[in-house]
Amino acid sequence: MFERLKLPFTVSARGAEVVIRRATREDLQPIVQLLSDDPISAGRGDVASAEDADAYAEALRRIIDDPSNELVVVLNDSGAVVGTLQLTVIPGMARRGSTRLLVEAVRVKSAERSSGIGSALMRWVMEQAAIDLGAPLVQLTSDAARTDAHRFYTRLGFADSHVGFKYYVDRSHPANHQR
Amino acid sequence: MFERLKLPFTVSARGAEVVIRRATREDLQPIVQLLSDDPISAGRGDVASAEDADAYAEALRRIIDDPSNELVVVLNDSGAVVGTLQLTVIPGMARRGSTRLLVEAVRVKSAERSSGIGSALMRWVMEQAAIDLGAPLVQLTSDAARTDAHRFYTRLGFADSHVGFKYYVDRSHPANHQR
Repeated sequence: MFERLKLPFTVSARGAEVVIRRATREDLQPIVQLLSDDPISAGRGDVASAEDADAYAEALRRIIDDPSNELVVVLNDSGAVVGTLQLTVIPGMARRGSTRLLVEAVRVKSAERSSGIGSALMRWVMEQAAIDLGAPLVQLTSDAARTDAHRFYTRLGFADSHVGFKYYVDRSHPANHQR
Repeated sequence: MFERLKLPFTVSARGAEVVIRRATREDLQPIVQLLSDDPISAGRGDVASAEDADAYAEALRRIIDDPSNELVVVLNDSGAVVGTLQLTVIPGMARRGSTRLLVEAVRVKSAERSSGIGSALMRWVMEQAAIDLGAPLVQLTSDAARTDAHRFYTRLGFADSHVGFKYYVDRSHPANHQR
């Protein structure tokens, strides 16, 4: 938990009030549903399968307990969880010692994707959270196939200046079972 | 400091033994020199200027004190610091609750760039550090202008599957002086 982050925080999404608050363990199911409500995530194995329930619960516990991370959810005006994202504060030497704010796992419920909720959530990151957390640089990566998302981030003011590389560790290695 | 990471660690770079160890506060000058020994970093303001010395020292202190981060340096066979990178362990919900290992600020001294030291350092990340830290996914971004680096990461086995977005917070905002 970042003490400097003022949460819950109310933002306006096209006139409707939505609330951003810290995720709790009770948000496990809605967050897993948001992850699976997306063909690219589903293609990577996030299908809200019962056999993955323990792994998701353990991951949620780790994020909540990690002082460098903050997982938030967005509630629509009915109080339902309709979006999520994760923030990580990363101190760094580059750019004259700038702290970075990494944004991961941005998801908005498919039925709400034209509601302005995603923009409201990202504007809170860019205009409020980054400042409260002392991070002059906000960064994220987006799968090359998510062309709608790329337009969304560019419209918000992000520059697509980098190439994002991923490497999946060979899981057949015996030491890698200790995840 | 990641207790599970076995450091110092000796690797072979084209037959020469090089040592990877944790950075200490005494490595401040060599690390700042590595950052400025690069035209793209220099273009972002990393020019090892005396007026930035306090900001770099403070950033180094923050990284060393942060339990989610590890800054390492590589020593050549003469014991000189010739490379550096930063690792951040990030718990996450996506990909069935996978922990990620983010690699930032990879730098190798320009005179040593064909020595195999960069490959040896990255192979240590991919084959040793990621496994010791329980992270099945290693990720990094590279400036779109660094085409040589892109070939380097692709050769190592990384997929250039993502677009990296950056946003610089408006520094004229009064709250952003508390960096």
